[in-house]
Amino acid sequence: MEKIVEQALLYDFYGELLTEHQRRIYEDVVLNDYSLSEVAEVLGISRQGVHDNVKRCHKILKDYEEKLHLVAKFESVKHKVNEIHQLTKDCEALDKKELADRVEAISHEILEEL
Amino acid sequence: MEKIVEQALLYDFYGELLTEHQRRIYEDVVLNDYSLSEVAEVLGISRQGVHDNVKRCHKILKDYEEKLHLVAKFESVKHKVNEIHQLTKDCEALDKKELADRVEAISHEILEEL
Repeated sequence: MEKIVEQALLYDFYGELLTEHQRRIYEDVVLNDYSLSEVAEVLGISRQGVHDNVKRCHKILKDYEEKLHLVAKFESVKHKVNEIHQLTKDCEALDKKELADRVEAISHEILEEL
Repeated sequence: MEKIVEQALLYDFYGELLTEHQRRIYEDVVLNDYSLSEVAEVLGISRQGVHDNVKRCHKILKDYEEKLHLVAKFESVKHKVNEIHQLTKDCEALDKKELADRVEAISHEILEEL
């Protein structure tokens, strides 16, 4: 996965667990792509302080993912929803019973992912 | 939701975020239904200590749910998987195209829940 996409997903799933101050810095630097110096100036803290904060946030978000695996589970469910999408798109080639059985099987796999 | 089911679900989703000591106490008291006194004796701590620990764990787990809503999302996805299950079970009554369209719509709703 591209690094910025991974960071955005981690933030999507665990951002609520950061403090408001951490969220602000992380959003500005990582998601909105402001420079460390710009963010430092606006917040009235040192450039090094912004850098350390971002690094700490990365670690916090990754630690949560190691424990809860929400991003991995989301990717896996997305994959299964895509399988359903392929089946419904190609349903001309399947009889109705087969379509129903395969959709049913995948939908149960989705629950097991969670 | 019945309280014990809710507690078990909260523990399922967020138990990894407790310490090992907290997990042990929570599992014994809440999930395995040992008495406070039994757990206190085995761990060599006071009955009040066990009680306070369980109370603290409840609060930690509920605070995570307030922020991440994993149990609520799981319930919602389960509901949607049941809708798919009903459709595939009753597929005699639907033509194939309708079955495919409705399954497709629900599967996209599942992704949006996450």
